[in-house]
Amino acid sequence: MAEHIFTEDTRRKLLTVSTATLTTIMFKRGFRNCFIGGIHPLNPEHARMVGPAYTLRYIPAREDLDQLKVFEDRAHPQRKGVEECPPGHVMVIDSRKDRAAASAGDILVTRLWKRAAAGIVTDGGFRDSADIAKLPFPAFHAGPSAPTNLIRHHAVDLNVPIGCGDVAVYPGDIIVSDTDGAVVIPRALADHVADEAVEQTLFETFVQERVMAGDGIFGLYPPSPEARQTFRIWREGRGEA
Amino acid sequence: MAEHIFTEDTRRKLLTVSTATLTTIMFKRGFRNCFIGGIHPLNPEHARMVGPAYTLRYIPAREDLDQLKVFEDRAHPQRKGVEECPPGHVMVIDSRKDRAAASAGDILVTRLWKRAAAGIVTDGGFRDSADIAKLPFPAFHAGPSAPTNLIRHHAVDLNVPIGCGDVAVYPGDIIVSDTDGAVVIPRALADHVADEAVEQTLFETFVQERVMAGDGIFGLYPPSPEARQTFRIWREGRGEA
Amino acid sequence: MAEHIFTEDTRRKLLTVSTATLTTIMFKRGFRNCFIGGIHPLNPEHARMVGPAYTLRYIPAREDLDQLKVFEDRAHPQRKGVEECPPGHVMVIDSRKDRAAASAGDILVTRLWKRAAAGIVTDGGFRDSADIAKLPFPAFHAGPSAPTNLIRHHAVDLNVPIGCGDVAVYPGDIIVSDTDGAVVIPRALADHVADEAVEQTLFETFVQERVMAGDGIFGLYPPSPEARQTFRIWREGRGEA
Amino acid sequence: MAEHIFTEDTRRKLLTVSTATLTTIMFKRGFRNCFIGGIHPLNPEHARMVGPAYTLRYIPAREDLDQLKVFEDRAHPQRKGVEECPPGHVMVIDSRKDRAAASAGDILVTRLWKRAAAGIVTDGGFRDSADIAKLPFPAFHAGPSAPTNLIRHHAVDLNVPIGCGDVAVYPGDIIVSDTDGAVVIPRALADHVADEAVEQTLFETFVQERVMAGDGIFGLYPPSPEARQTFRIWREGRGEA
Amino acid sequence: MAEHIFTEDTRRKLLTVSTATLTTIMFKRGFRNCFIGGIHPLNPEHARMVGPAYTLRYIPAREDLDQLKVFEDRAHPQRKGVEECPPGHVMVIDSRKDRAAASAGDILVTRLWKRAAAGIVTDGGFRDSADIAKLPFPAFHAGPSAPTNLIRHHAVDLNVPIGCGDVAVYPGDIIVSDTDGAVVIPRALADHVADEAVEQTLFETFVQERVMAGDGIFGLYPPSPEARQTFRIWREGRGEA
Amino acid sequence: MAEHIFTEDTRRKLLTVSTATLTTIMFKRGFRNCFIGGIHPLNPEHARMVGPAYTLRYIPAREDLDQLKVFEDRAHPQRKGVEECPPGHVMVIDSRKDRAAASAGDILVTRLWKRAAAGIVTDGGFRDSADIAKLPFPAFHAGPSAPTNLIRHHAVDLNVPIGCGDVAVYPGDIIVSDTDGAVVIPRALADHVADEAVEQTLFETFVQERVMAGDGIFGLYPPSPEARQTFRIWREGRGEA
Repeated sequence: MAEHIFTEDTRRKLLTVSTATLTTIMFKRGFRNCFIGGIHPLNPEHARMVGPAYTLRYIPAREDLDQLKVFEDRAHPQRKGVEECPPGHVMVIDSRKDRAAASAGDILVTRLWKRAAAGIVTDGGFRDSADIAKLPFPAFHAGPSAPTNLIRHHAVDLNVPIGCGDVAVYPGDIIVSDTDGAVVIPRALADHVADEAVEQTLFETFVQERVMAGDGIFGLYPPSPEARQTFRIWREGRGEA
Repeated sequence: MAEHIFTEDTRRKLLTVSTATLTTIMFKRGFRNCFIGGIHPLNPEHARMVGPAYTLRYIPAREDLDQLKVFEDRAHPQRKGVEECPPGHVMVIDSRKDRAAASAGDILVTRLWKRAAAGIVTDGGFRDSADIAKLPFPAFHAGPSAPTNLIRHHAVDLNVPIGCGDVAVYPGDIIVSDTDGAVVIPRALADHVADEAVEQTLFETFVQERVMAGDGIFGLYPPSPEARQTFRIWREGRGEA
Repeated sequence: MAEHIFTEDTRRKLLTVSTATLTTIMFKRGFRNCFIGGIHPLNPEHARMVGPAYTLRYIPAREDLDQLKVFEDRAHPQRKGVEECPPGHVMVIDSRKDRAAASAGDILVTRLWKRAAAGIVTDGGFRDSADIAKLPFPAFHAGPSAPTNLIRHHAVDLNVPIGCGDVAVYPGDIIVSDTDGAVVIPRALADHVADEAVEQTLFETFVQERVMAGDGIFGLYPPSPEARQTFRIWREGRGEA
Repeated sequence: MAEHIFTEDTRRKLLTVSTATLTTIMFKRGFRNCFIGGIHPLNPEHARMVGPAYTLRYIPAREDLDQLKVFEDRAHPQRKGVEECPPGHVMVIDSRKDRAAASAGDILVTRLWKRAAAGIVTDGGFRDSADIAKLPFPAFHAGPSAPTNLIRHHAVDLNVPIGCGDVAVYPGDIIVSDTDGAVVIPRALADHVADEAVEQTLFETFVQERVMAGDGIFGLYPPSPEARQTFRIWREGRGEA
Repeated sequence: MAEHIFTEDTRRKLLTVSTATLTTIMFKRGFRNCFIGGIHPLNPEHARMVGPAYTLRYIPAREDLDQLKVFEDRAHPQRKGVEECPPGHVMVIDSRKDRAAASAGDILVTRLWKRAAAGIVTDGGFRDSADIAKLPFPAFHAGPSAPTNLIRHHAVDLNVPIGCGDVAVYPGDIIVSDTDGAVVIPRALADHVADEAVEQTLFETFVQERVMAGDGIFGLYPPSPEARQTFRIWREGRGEA
Repeated sequence: MAEHIFTEDTRRKLLTVSTATLTTIMFKRGFRNCFIGGIHPLNPEHARMVGPAYTLRYIPAREDLDQLKVFEDRAHPQRKGVEECPPGHVMVIDSRKDRAAASAGDILVTRLWKRAAAGIVTDGGFRDSADIAKLPFPAFHAGPSAPTNLIRHHAVDLNVPIGCGDVAVYPGDIIVSDTDGAVVIPRALADHVADEAVEQTLFETFVQERVMAGDGIFGLYPPSPEARQTFRIWREGRGEA
């Protein structure tokens, strides 16, 4: 799938739509399991994130292998990943939904941010969560976890297909997040999904305005032919074709 | 139980007492399982809510039945419920504690608010949670969930007895919430429970004042005869009989 | 272990270091299971707490024994504990990770605060959580729970070894917390752990500065001989030996 | 869907196929969530069961309503259901996956068997499990549970759509079980699914014979054109068209 | 409660009744939470057990304290308990429902059996489960667990009140088990509960006979005045007053 | 680690010792997390299995990729693994502890057996569990699961490091099982662990004989110098040096 180019135009569109809208559009295409739930942004002000997935796979730790000295090895996948995750990408970590030890801490997350990554997601937990929460950087986890990752996690692979929060994530898949959680979109579908999501968002903005104005939802959401016509007029009034 | 009138006086009293106080009063009457826990208000500024329950029952979705077109049907229980929930009532949704898909989203919740419902509770999750959190409307869930409800939930019934968060909820039961969660009070008991709760709250305000002033809890909480007398004087001083 | 004195110097040092740093130092000494996770501070502004553990043990409630009248008994462990927990100590409650009923409420927590306890931790939940959150007092739980503790908990012992959040807590163990959760340090190790943690924190402050300045983590974290030298110079520049 | 006749021919076919085969055939038709897992037969000798669903819905118990006297009421849904479940039907109970109290006990299950029901399924537990296990009657649960159902369950409805083990069950759906668990087949699909399952079972019998004879699975499972031809010959040899 | 004598007569009666019957009788006395569920007998042929509780309390292990050498100490509560549990008593272990390490193994269980204990219960797991299953000795657990208990459990107390499977167990409480699990009966109630259970069992034997003979449950279970009369006659016919 | 030869002598020794004994010996070497629990043999008569691990990794399924046609690809890791797992090896599957769909079924397991694999382990579930249970082949799972693996699992890798039941499994690690579950032993340690386990087993056989003869455990288990001497004599009497 790597041959599909992820364009700046698509990235910008995806930044304007919600994960709720995206999961509905994915559902229409037959995708029922593309939402990483049970996670939340450490900093709710920085919940929106869009970028291709760069993955890190953990397996359970083993006492003889997972000692502090492993971090001295530049090939250690966690450390290597932090230095090699391409700018604009989202690091996605398979922590097997285990937050008994940290997936990463503030120094590594800060480094990722400085290297212009788009964000980081784990289905485990981060340590130094209060410090990470102060960064202007989207970071999602299931909840804080202070212990060093060596207690439970062994970093084993970079950029292989993984599971994160019970969802398949392939390297290069497009990750989009907001306060609800994160959606995983196969790269080849990203352009079309983004277009349809922008369209649907525009319609839902119209619906929300009507509901705020006191309209009921019957005939509006989903729309009757009349509501479609009203929407078209509203849309033209906004100058959006 | 529908014959019991839920008075404005009782509603106002219940708005001033905590769910902690109410569960204790219910416990004295033999009710051990009347608290819906594991949920929280999306907007902590709007955590207090009182009103009779109007229920919505979900069962698991089935792939052939639960497609987007179902929302075009005005008899679809989720949509119908949003338009028919009486003003002042609390919509309570049995989502089987499953937040793998949304129980509802911001448009429906906004409509409920516009229709003057008292609030909404699910033991699952809402989508568009950041937008719902901006409404001045009490909404409680277990956590955000972006996917459309069709992925996991099939709306099947309105206003039948349900379970919500492992608690029985009968239509018309009085729902009272605060930051801790929500209490379910059988309608026939609401007046007496409200009276006793107001009384108990007054006493606990007194106790809290004494504790803040440095008193110990022995002989105060629960009160000795002397403490009861002090309370009576304090109470008269406040002009509350 | 009670013979080890917990000094004010050690207390002050521990107030400046994170639970992430402490768990790493404990790991180096062979302790893999010393972090109470799955809890959070009710008031994030008051997440830092240091003090010796004073424990309270709950077992499941029994319907005939656990009635409201038990609180009239001054020997009731929950009430007695609140009046006897020594100043500077942290009350740690073994609630068997069960938040179906409250471990304590605002009156008792307020009393503990007035009595100059250092904080309170339960692996269950507190009631009146919004009121407790307003106190300038570190209080940690798994989540709110309104029902009176009598519904699920029977207070049975004070100051015996317990489990809290799957971690062993012996009376007098030193409890240190921040936003991530709480670490349990055997009293005999506290001085050495505190010293090493202060040292490690200083180094991590240096690392974080370098990372903020754009340095990569290779050769820095963990440090190469050159980085160690740079650190020594940086440190002298700060006037910290 | 009630208009579809469930024929004896289809029933007999379904008795000869496995739930594994059926879930694959359902998957080909787009059904991903039709298997009630996490349950097992009390008597493995009587694991096979086929019949239309007759449902019983439980909600959580309420202390004032759910007292022993309720069983004196002939309209009590649990008791009524046991006397009215049609012969050949499978009673399916929505116990909300809660086995903290029994869904039913040996007397009611014996009565169902005497009334010629096809079997019984709960996603909770049965009491008197050793006695039920002695009956020549298919009974499935998640595990034993001695307490009377009044402690946790309130029987509220008969023959309405329910969830059982996270699967939707509509009255009249065809339930088929074996040692793995139970499959729910919409009635309208039963004939076609049964035919295809018989076909697939025949093919898998052939495959299993070949594998037992030492063949590899490549080109056999799934079959190459050659393997299809070999199958056809094998089949004719058995006299099965 | 230790002053109540547990008579051989009561013991014999309790051996003839089911945990299902006992939980119902306890429910009539207001006890809703007296059943230890989620456990099963390792040897179903030896599921029936009656005796006073002798308790062992585990807390989580700590790496420095829980090393193999601890077993050399004759005061180690696990080893001491096995040698001191009185004949006829049931050892009940609070393993915090954690079966990640063993509560005990075949040597200790064999020793308990040789010392004429009545049985053993843990809410964790036993190691050497196949060997224990061969003993003619009632042993209940949640499932097998090979690792030495030192990995997760620290034996801390003997014969104090504990929780086992979310149920309170006080030393001397009467434990009664069958295939469904185990019931905990406060010692002071044992005689009366046993008498009523024998009575109820006799009635249910009659009911079961009638159901096997083809009778319906209405008017039989619970009994109408006519059914009560029939029962009296049946009972006299059996020579049981 | 692949350079260590796994000898027939070691294999034979490991077949005679229990997982309980092995986990204790591993604990003495610092390994606390080497036991795959929560699984059981489908056929308890065939619970003992020893062999090097050959791994299969699943990630969550994706609707567009995981369709029935994938099985036609000879490179599909599940099918390829079944044909390539070396004789004497144990196939170990990382199913992320998810038994909502099958890890494999009877045809593939039969093929593995015919190909002389030593056994198969999944932390998920098998379909056709009754048929697999009839094979004289060690197969372990968490419980049955009928749905085709495509519903939840995507086979992605063969013979890479995985997690199984929260334990790290590296290709070539030695897997040893009995009724309690399975132990994972790093290949380089297998010889020494096997020797020590045989020794320990001999001692425990002696202890068990003494306990059956009526001895207490003090001074026996662990042994006093006298008991060690008695053991030496007993051992010589058996002709085992």
